[in-house]
Amino acid sequence: MLILNKNDIKKVFNMKDAIDAAKEALLIFSRGKSVVPLRTNIDIPKYEGQSLFMPAYVEGLNSVGIKIVSVFPENAKKGIPSVPAKMILLDGKTGDVICIMDGTFLTQLRTGATSGAATDILANKDSRQGALFGTGGQAPSQLEAMLTVRNLDVVKVFATNREKTQGFVEKMNNELKRFSTKIIAAESADDAVKDADIITTATTSKNPVFNGKLIKKGAHINAVGSYTPVMQELDEYTIQNADKIYMDSKDAVLSESGDFIIPIEKGLIDDSRINGELGEVISKKIEGRTFGDEITLYKTVGIAVMDVVTAYKIYEKALETKTGTFIDL
Amino acid sequence: MLILNKNDIKKVFNMKDAIDAAKEALLIFSRGKSVVPLRTNIDIPKYEGQSLFMPAYVEGLNSVGIKIVSVFPENAKKGIPSVPAKMILLDGKTGDVICIMDGTFLTQLRTGATSGAATDILANKDSRQGALFGTGGQAPSQLEAMLTVRNLDVVKVFATNREKTQGFVEKMNNELKRFSTKIIAAESADDAVKDADIITTATTSKNPVFNGKLIKKGAHINAVGSYTPVMQELDEYTIQNADKIYMDSKDAVLSESGDFIIPIEKGLIDDSRINGELGEVISKKIEGRTFGDEITLYKTVGIAVMDVVTAYKIYEKALETKTGTFIDL
Repeated sequence: MLILNKNDIKKVFNMKDAIDAAKEALLIFSRGKSVVPLRTNIDIPKYEGQSLFMPAYVEGLNSVGIKIVSVFPENAKKGIPSVPAKMILLDGKTGDVICIMDGTFLTQLRTGATSGAATDILANKDSRQGALFGTGGQAPSQLEAMLTVRNLDVVKVFATNREKTQGFVEKMNNELKRFSTKIIAAESADDAVKDADIITTATTSKNPVFNGKLIKKGAHINAVGSYTPVMQELDEYTIQNADKIYMDSKDAVLSESGDFIIPIEKGLIDDSRINGELGEVISKKIEGRTFGDEITLYKTVGIAVMDVVTAYKIYEKALETKTGTFIDL
Repeated sequence: MLILNKNDIKKVFNMKDAIDAAKEALLIFSRGKSVVPLRTNIDIPKYEGQSLFMPAYVEGLNSVGIKIVSVFPENAKKGIPSVPAKMILLDGKTGDVICIMDGTFLTQLRTGATSGAATDILANKDSRQGALFGTGGQAPSQLEAMLTVRNLDVVKVFATNREKTQGFVEKMNNELKRFSTKIIAAESADDAVKDADIITTATTSKNPVFNGKLIKKGAHINAVGSYTPVMQELDEYTIQNADKIYMDSKDAVLSESGDFIIPIEKGLIDDSRINGELGEVISKKIEGRTFGDEITLYKTVGIAVMDVVTAYKIYEKALETKTGTFIDL
């Protein structure tokens, strides 16, 4: 069995690889070429935690996997990660467990990559300015994905904690200096959004994080937070007025994300507003952006198929390059 | 994360330890002190296989685990195990994955141990002769468990392949010589069963493996095979005439085992024939054997709680003795 930690993954798999894997996963998913059983949740009230078990199978890659993610907010007080995760891969030809890898980093990578894929497919080629809302665990890979697919002059970052934002910006300018993009802290949410060609929201907010009326014509939005029915990052104006709306999984978004559940419950929109899944754009079943001044919106809540496909591609690259630690089990 | 292979487990955990863990698990299960979600099955028709994901949580031990078991009969042709399995343990206080161990050996150990627990609790103390049906993967630990809890003079082994049985008997006499019990190949099923005080069946048979009319008064039976509705090891005479019938999980046996499903469907018995769960005997909620000449029957199909409890006890012992391989993940 191969063990891959965060450094091993980084060594063999970059954001470009992850975006390619994301596109393949979205295509497989939207074509129905995967098996995704309902996830199993075990509540652990004694420690205010929950462990989630998310299996999936992709026949085309002979790949079965299960991501184990626990959500233990109290861990933070003990100085340990509050959302520990591991990904376990099985060989779909023999059923044996062949790999276990850092699931936290995998999740960050593939969540950045799903936005990267959407941006690559939907954003205008001449995009010059980005906006990023949030500076948490998902933010670095969201930023890296944005810079990987478009040549941006500047990205303005906004989050409620000004000091933390400043620290994030400094760190990112250093880590991502190869892109020659100026990453700066925005003065305000309005300042971040008003001239942005690409906007990514990756917060846990329960209230809209920017004013949709300020979105520039031709902008593309990636909405990554709002993965529960009570979370809402986008205001209703945005949901009502975006020209094109795409999702990773329509079923998953409509059953999990407050960004859509709340305006649908209020009767402000119905699901005919949704153009379809990004995988359907990739397969050319539906159209993506058709005009430069359209506002496009991509909403993702994450799909298990993306974990399995991305993990499997990482595993293959690690085998090729003899990266990671083999253990006899 | 701690990695424990078969040798690591053997080093720190013997059959006596496993039987103690089995009793604790049965007690926890029958008292309702565990959470066992429905298992998830993924079919892999391309390779005629199936992968099963079986999570469970035991609050009292702060222990969450998932056993991943695949059933790929075609693997045998490739010379690799046809039922590969791994057990993954999480820390119930933090949700993090803390250990991964050989699930095949864990399953053999705990399946032997559940019969060992039942035999210890239900068989007459002066039992002298054993019978074992089957020489497959589960047989060695079934035999070891039987010898661990009773001082037997002889165990007669019967299986359809005479040559394989002879090889098994030789191997077992060597491996288990510390018990000073004569392990011999029976002439026939009748020969094995007729004077046996303890009878264990561990086959994949779809037809009864011995004649129930030959069971000696006072005998105890462990029925380990028949884990699907079409498998049947025990004849209907045995099911109708055993004085006391116990199970690991009544719900699981009645929904999975042909030993009971078939005679119930035929209207030969109903579930009032079943005295209860072994965990209820352990907690003294119900009686076990009350007379020396009663025939007692224990039917097990395996419960996920036993995997988690046994794995957790192994993990603790390995930590104490610094056994296994630590990896940074």
